Amino acid sequence: MVKQARLLELLEKYSNQQTFKEGPQNLYAPVRYILDIGGKRIRPLLTLMAAEAFSGNAEDVLPGAFAIELFHNFSLLHDDIMDEAPLRRGQKSVHIKFGINAGILSGDVMLVLVYQYLKEMPNDGMFKQMMSLFNAAAIEVCEGQQLDVDFETMSEVEESLYLEMIEKKTAALLGAALGIGAYPYASTEEVTKLIAFGRNLGIAFQLRDDLLDTFGDTFKVGKQKGGDILQNKKTILTIHAKNSASKKDKDRLEYLFSTMGLDNHDKVEEVTAIYLRSGSKKYTEEKIEEYQTIALKNLVELNLADDMKKPFFQLAESLMARQF
Amino acid sequence: MVKQARLLELLEKYSNQQTFKEGPQNLYAPVRYILDIGGKRIRPLLTLMAAEAFSGNAEDVLPGAFAIELFHNFSLLHDDIMDEAPLRRGQKSVHIKFGINAGILSGDVMLVLVYQYLKEMPNDGMFKQMMSLFNAAAIEVCEGQQLDVDFETMSEVEESLYLEMIEKKTAALLGAALGIGAYPYASTEEVTKLIAFGRNLGIAFQLRDDLLDTFGDTFKVGKQKGGDILQNKKTILTIHAKNSASKKDKDRLEYLFSTMGLDNHDKVEEVTAIYLRSGSKKYTEEKIEEYQTIALKNLVELNLADDMKKPFFQLAESLMARQF
Repeated sequence: MVKQARLLELLEKYSNQQTFKEGPQNLYAPVRYILDIGGKRIRPLLTLMAAEAFSGNAEDVLPGAFAIELFHNFSLLHDDIMDEAPLRRGQKSVHIKFGINAGILSGDVMLVLVYQYLKEMPNDGMFKQMMSLFNAAAIEVCEGQQLDVDFETMSEVEESLYLEMIEKKTAALLGAALGIGAYPYASTEEVTKLIAFGRNLGIAFQLRDDLLDTFGDTFKVGKQKGGDILQNKKTILTIHAKNSASKKDKDRLEYLFSTMGLDNHDKVEEVTAIYLRSGSKKYTEEKIEEYQTIALKNLVELNLADDMKKPFFQLAESLMARQF
Repeated sequence: MVKQARLLELLEKYSNQQTFKEGPQNLYAPVRYILDIGGKRIRPLLTLMAAEAFSGNAEDVLPGAFAIELFHNFSLLHDDIMDEAPLRRGQKSVHIKFGINAGILSGDVMLVLVYQYLKEMPNDGMFKQMMSLFNAAAIEVCEGQQLDVDFETMSEVEESLYLEMIEKKTAALLGAALGIGAYPYASTEEVTKLIAFGRNLGIAFQLRDDLLDTFGDTFKVGKQKGGDILQNKKTILTIHAKNSASKKDKDRLEYLFSTMGLDNHDKVEEVTAIYLRSGSKKYTEEKIEEYQTIALKNLVELNLADDMKKPFFQLAESLMARQF
């Protein structure tokens, strides 16, 4: 993990050096706030790692890495408004701390800043191609979030549509983070393979997120435990349980997901028990394993020396074990 | 006006040809909706006119013109959410028709699409320069909107800060619309002058908007009459009246602006009367004239043959007379 620590340090230094305009204070304070309350910096780290894997210089792609982190935080910021999420990384969400309007607008300016930073990337000849790659992922992120919102009012969600949603909402940006780091140095074919690795890892990662929201430890995860259940969110667990639980459990689940109370701990416990009985926890664990395996296969197929791939294997492993 | 009609037709044809992805329906329907409910298309028209003024081909800069119109509509969409505006161009605002979440997210995807279209502009060698020009204006638009939001909770707003707000919120994009159309064909110096023309015209235009919100005709303007007054918005009229009205009127104005009732026609009438007594209507008309004069001076200084400038004079005239 020595290499990752070095890259993360590079990134934090770069991020801290970015001074946004001084005013209006209400516009830029939320930008600094959401960047400063942490996060694992997985996406920008992937950008730096991708550059180095193809013998590029991590420092040269710092603007792209920062752009990816900005975009990620922009999407969190707007998503938290839509999801009415009170906490982000164990701290107040931006819209709680600064108000909804500041949240909307600061997100908007962050998205413009994303393109300011992308503009600083090396290899002008490939710039428009890189922008296409980024834009495609950015559009997917919006589409994924829309699907997620749509799911709230749908009575049934097919597993395949759910997987499409998380691929767009979460995995697309992980793929793009890698692609942007690699594009100045790698062939289109290699970039494509690396992106596939990122996307499959992303799906596995998001499924694990679903699992942890219900079965994780509030303190470690930094989010309200059972938040998905309390918000009647459809996740891989719900979708599986609705298909596989006993008649009695199915009816009960349907009833519980028709009630709304954001502080109902009994509901969380009861739903959790149904997920266990219906085998939905186990099923989710298997699905995670499945996507993880494809991701590692993508990595194996990359035309790179083994020691260049090693950091990706290590990162994937610690990510999935949440030891990061 | 024959030329403008031709350019507008070109633009509508291009806009109608743009098919956004089919799904998710809830993400793209609001994009089509806000583009289709009209608007004067002033900004994209400026882009096409700028290209032709410098002997470029209007058709080649259509993607830039469309990007500018998309950005403008993105900002209207998010502003309407923040301002809780029920109407836009005499129709339901997006967030009223589709909900706040759809409004936020569709705006986001529009902003990404803006950059997709900018990417299609001619003259690759100048592309990053054009992106800088656009980004600077886009950031100003966000800053301007933030100032506008900030004004709601400020007891006093200086006229200079108010003018800064409208320059950023409205005028910057009019300048950029011209700059983007001219940049592939004109020198940096000429682009700069043309941008100055757009910005000064924009300030005049926005001041006129303030005037019309209170003194205009609801049917023609397509917005709730006296909307600014009902929302206690600070405009050039309020700011002047607070400085120039009689003691009695000032106190009354302060009281009226401390009340909130979104259907109070007496309030609108009373405030309107104060604006007339304090000379604030007249003052605003003079200010409009002032910026209009500077804008025309910017135009005169442009190194272009008179017949190339003529369309800009005509447009400025019909814009200010609201005969457009």
